[in-house]
Amino acid sequence: MIITLKKDAKQEETEKLLRSLENKGLSVNMIQGDTFNVFGLVGDTSKLDERLIKAHPFVENVQRIAAPYKLANRMFHPQDTIIDVNGIHIGGKEPIVVIGGPCSVESEEMIERIAYKVKEAGACMLRGGAYKPRTSPYAFQGMGTQGILAMEKAGKKTGLPIVSELMSADKLDEFIEHVDVIQIGARNMQNFDLLKAVGKTKKPILLKRGLANTIEEWIMAAEYILSEGNPNVIFCERGIRTFEPYTRNTLDLSVIPIIKEKTHLPIIIDPSHATGDWKLVESASLAAIAAGADGLIIEVHDDPENAMSDGVQSLLPEKFDALVEKGRKIAKVMGRSI
Amino acid sequence: MIITLKKDAKQEETEKLLRSLENKGLSVNMIQGDTFNVFGLVGDTSKLDERLIKAHPFVENVQRIAAPYKLANRMFHPQDTIIDVNGIHIGGKEPIVVIGGPCSVESEEMIERIAYKVKEAGACMLRGGAYKPRTSPYAFQGMGTQGILAMEKAGKKTGLPIVSELMSADKLDEFIEHVDVIQIGARNMQNFDLLKAVGKTKKPILLKRGLANTIEEWIMAAEYILSEGNPNVIFCERGIRTFEPYTRNTLDLSVIPIIKEKTHLPIIIDPSHATGDWKLVESASLAAIAAGADGLIIEVHDDPENAMSDGVQSLLPEKFDALVEKGRKIAKVMGRSI
Amino acid sequence: MIITLKKDAKQEETEKLLRSLENKGLSVNMIQGDTFNVFGLVGDTSKLDERLIKAHPFVENVQRIAAPYKLANRMFHPQDTIIDVNGIHIGGKEPIVVIGGPCSVESEEMIERIAYKVKEAGACMLRGGAYKPRTSPYAFQGMGTQGILAMEKAGKKTGLPIVSELMSADKLDEFIEHVDVIQIGARNMQNFDLLKAVGKTKKPILLKRGLANTIEEWIMAAEYILSEGNPNVIFCERGIRTFEPYTRNTLDLSVIPIIKEKTHLPIIIDPSHATGDWKLVESASLAAIAAGADGLIIEVHDDPENAMSDGVQSLLPEKFDALVEKGRKIAKVMGRSI
Amino acid sequence: MIITLKKDAKQEETEKLLRSLENKGLSVNMIQGDTFNVFGLVGDTSKLDERLIKAHPFVENVQRIAAPYKLANRMFHPQDTIIDVNGIHIGGKEPIVVIGGPCSVESEEMIERIAYKVKEAGACMLRGGAYKPRTSPYAFQGMGTQGILAMEKAGKKTGLPIVSELMSADKLDEFIEHVDVIQIGARNMQNFDLLKAVGKTKKPILLKRGLANTIEEWIMAAEYILSEGNPNVIFCERGIRTFEPYTRNTLDLSVIPIIKEKTHLPIIIDPSHATGDWKLVESASLAAIAAGADGLIIEVHDDPENAMSDGVQSLLPEKFDALVEKGRKIAKVMGRSI
Repeated sequence: MIITLKKDAKQEETEKLLRSLENKGLSVNMIQGDTFNVFGLVGDTSKLDERLIKAHPFVENVQRIAAPYKLANRMFHPQDTIIDVNGIHIGGKEPIVVIGGPCSVESEEMIERIAYKVKEAGACMLRGGAYKPRTSPYAFQGMGTQGILAMEKAGKKTGLPIVSELMSADKLDEFIEHVDVIQIGARNMQNFDLLKAVGKTKKPILLKRGLANTIEEWIMAAEYILSEGNPNVIFCERGIRTFEPYTRNTLDLSVIPIIKEKTHLPIIIDPSHATGDWKLVESASLAAIAAGADGLIIEVHDDPENAMSDGVQSLLPEKFDALVEKGRKIAKVMGRSI
Repeated sequence: MIITLKKDAKQEETEKLLRSLENKGLSVNMIQGDTFNVFGLVGDTSKLDERLIKAHPFVENVQRIAAPYKLANRMFHPQDTIIDVNGIHIGGKEPIVVIGGPCSVESEEMIERIAYKVKEAGACMLRGGAYKPRTSPYAFQGMGTQGILAMEKAGKKTGLPIVSELMSADKLDEFIEHVDVIQIGARNMQNFDLLKAVGKTKKPILLKRGLANTIEEWIMAAEYILSEGNPNVIFCERGIRTFEPYTRNTLDLSVIPIIKEKTHLPIIIDPSHATGDWKLVESASLAAIAAGADGLIIEVHDDPENAMSDGVQSLLPEKFDALVEKGRKIAKVMGRSI
Repeated sequence: MIITLKKDAKQEETEKLLRSLENKGLSVNMIQGDTFNVFGLVGDTSKLDERLIKAHPFVENVQRIAAPYKLANRMFHPQDTIIDVNGIHIGGKEPIVVIGGPCSVESEEMIERIAYKVKEAGACMLRGGAYKPRTSPYAFQGMGTQGILAMEKAGKKTGLPIVSELMSADKLDEFIEHVDVIQIGARNMQNFDLLKAVGKTKKPILLKRGLANTIEEWIMAAEYILSEGNPNVIFCERGIRTFEPYTRNTLDLSVIPIIKEKTHLPIIIDPSHATGDWKLVESASLAAIAAGADGLIIEVHDDPENAMSDGVQSLLPEKFDALVEKGRKIAKVMGRSI
Repeated sequence: MIITLKKDAKQEETEKLLRSLENKGLSVNMIQGDTFNVFGLVGDTSKLDERLIKAHPFVENVQRIAAPYKLANRMFHPQDTIIDVNGIHIGGKEPIVVIGGPCSVESEEMIERIAYKVKEAGACMLRGGAYKPRTSPYAFQGMGTQGILAMEKAGKKTGLPIVSELMSADKLDEFIEHVDVIQIGARNMQNFDLLKAVGKTKKPILLKRGLANTIEEWIMAAEYILSEGNPNVIFCERGIRTFEPYTRNTLDLSVIPIIKEKTHLPIIIDPSHATGDWKLVESASLAAIAAGADGLIIEVHDDPENAMSDGVQSLLPEKFDALVEKGRKIAKVMGRSI
């Protein structure tokens, strides 16, 4: 960590700060500049709060050199982490996973029907929402427990592990019992109590990036889960909010090489929420594979016009099928398979 | 609601959509254009999901005319809502409320000491965090219940109602018993289960705007609370995330006249989080009053360098005092008082 | 165009607006709603300024149905436009063009040396800046005319057409004489006088997307060029400005299918400026090809540490070579070649 | 400047970089950390390009300590610069200037009529556009020279200095002869050739902030003008682009105290473009004065519905009058006048 001090800082203030840092076990080097002086700190600064040091009126700026995350940091864990979901492996050089399914579970019959269709097209996991975060209180809020049980049944019949979003820690037991991968949604990426709760389980966690969260904040959210003892975190990019009104979000594919450089955890892409428009999903999916993604999670519906949510961004099964077909060829170029 | 249809839409598809809309009790007018046809819907469209209509392949676009919120809408509730917090009134032409206090409660002695200082400077409520949403799992997470009890004590001694952030519904009973105003933080603005939970109480709710949420999404979050039966919502703008790195966030003061035009609820401003820098807090606070805010919530600490969080954006009590003094004069020009 | 009128609009005001619209040759349909009335306009609204109609105090909102661009609009020009640059074709199903070269021309020897290297790796055009838009007045501003002449020479020797940025209309004659493709940089995307000037030539124009411009504004910038008589516009996405600090910009690949749906013009991607980091360029380039791009423009330097600008985002020739190799395989999957 | 080096950097590479920095007259201090080594540079780093240093593969990061601007920097020029426009002073503790007038000059009669009205309301300068940057090539592009001459006439009759936007250096002579303050628009903030051109004059320059430009980039644009020899730069904030669709832009008032801390130059606010809606202009204007602005530039039109541009954000003269009246009272609280 680098602390920039104003030139007119009084010596006693500077020394007081120096001693307080040394008391934290850090060694401090000082550089005298023309317009500023600089403290360079050596030692473990991950628990130092830079905004507190900045509170000193004679401190001009504080800059972190080492990343604030430890457990997620590839520097201390060079090999790729491979997440195991009922025998399906995610990450490293493993096959690219394709997760398909509807936005919302609408009935037992419906989720089973679509489960078979996505399986046939090549998906290896089933997605579906039973608890739905909706902007409007008047919109369909999901089937709840009935939806989770319907998914579990469809998953068992087809042999597909299931992924569903947990919105509140009070449903955690239900998810531990019935769900294979627990999704933390974009709006809850910094719901720290929820992160701590899922960190106490051993379930694989699909951690979506928040609407307007930086890559570092996202890794810190993973660090919350890891620090509670759960090493099974899968990052999921789903687009960020920008000024562009045409797409629902702006898909940031640069996160793929960055997450892989900074951390040892796998990352998958959600092209459906990223674009918000089924016509853009194939292009985004192929791009994600070419960019190095470990997987895709895609909304599929066989009657999007009558879907209970997100019909506009859901692919018809036949289009999903065609997408997987092309994706397989791109994956091969990348030295992987689907 | 206006639905734009592609010119090449088949008549039977158009008619099917027409009938399904009419079955929902809406009356539909059709306009034939040169490049598109248009359906204009008359009736209550607040429960219609535009993303589902957009899922029809022959629909080019869907545009909402009427706002999707009803209970928060000034159109149906023209007079200002005044929120009562233990006799202090917020909104309308009532005096501008100033809420002061530390970011985090650090000890019983500390919160009491600061409570007296902010009261002396003219604050009419005390803020303080006991459960802290921190980006890093390694940062101070707050005193929890002990912090809430210490605040309650300080509030009783000074006669100031207390405001504190609730992060999880499982602490709701504690907050109902000990806290006067429940704050929903920016990161939880779309934690819909939490919104529903506080909507079932009658406590005043301070609803912060999310990091990157539009005004409409923010009003919809209020609508969640109102629709559960709690009419006591106070909006709180705390800056939005932009590309500008110099400030922590970008304070959007235009929300003041907009919220007052669109809704009947009061709105206050948090200049501390908006700027992230105590040197910018006074300027932002005076601007907020001149823009028409109903109140301010400001971080105050008497030893910011040793604060346990957010020291850099906390004002010293004497600076807070000077700010309130100037604010009073601006308030007077605006036809109000502090 | 759809005009929403407040319910309390006086009849005479409404009629005045109605007549003024009809005088512009538009036919107007009125829908009476519960909370608003609506005018639906039929006819050519491309020259109507919606912000002027919005100025009427009884107008609540104005929404455009038809796109405001005509010449760029695929609706009126369904077949792909193929741009010809000295026999190289860009767009449609033509081979994907790869343009390589340094950020700045640094000397005659240097640009010739790199020209041979990028050609060898598979590039079909040479890029290089002679007039450089630099944030700081103290940074290297480019070699100017000497740079243009050096590029022309390198282009002739290698047989590669050259692409260079024009910053000011007073250098247009120089560019017409010596340059094959004129680049309009991101910072000048809405320098309308410059757009008009290049619109008066027949040169192919590489039109970069502005830092924070919407897709519609970008197409309107192309419309400026087209409306002056120059049909040869190539769009170039180079990342947009977002809150994320890790990358220089955020690459928005969704523009590829959108530009291809809305317009008939080709689009290429600049992964160097989009990411700002050579380590991220390969991933972004492959993703762009998989997303359907018509080309890539990539910064290449054989001594990036001593480059006069943008060294950090320049690829070494051997890495560029490897990238083109992989790109070729992805292109093949997409039914194209490089 | 602080350079972070990877631990595995080879000694010879490190030494080569060290020597090249020392050859530039800088003294270099090295700190050995646990995970990184750090170079701290002492000396004038304003002409060092951090992106070139970052190009070294063994460099992890480069951070600037001292600001990259010199002439605009308050550190080297502590007293406020006061700009003189025909005897009207802008900046320091001088009266707050109010500039009013239409978006576009529409006729000689119109600009004269409005000039008298804004003068009566308390404006001390007249604004008006003769060359208009319009998103659409089909929109009104301004009266050009006729408009400039009409403004000059109106300015002479009323005694108000005139402000107008220059879009292209080829009109500079016209502006030097007829215009009092040359405006550089938001879209041209990084049109560096135009900045250099106006830097060669002695005219006061009103430098608008770009749509999505950081404060530092904005100050660097001023530095371009200053470094050519023109010290008369007035900053003008007009809102930045964000995700919020309700307002045209988001007004960032925090720039007022920041520009005043970092530079010695005056800053004024344009609430008309910032909000894009006349109903929001008064609130934003009063807030700007309370935040410490040195002036306001406001669009005024006496027939907004028939304006040739931007009617929706233009105030009627009587509303402008009321605004100035309230502004005067806020100014008084701030220790200034209008």
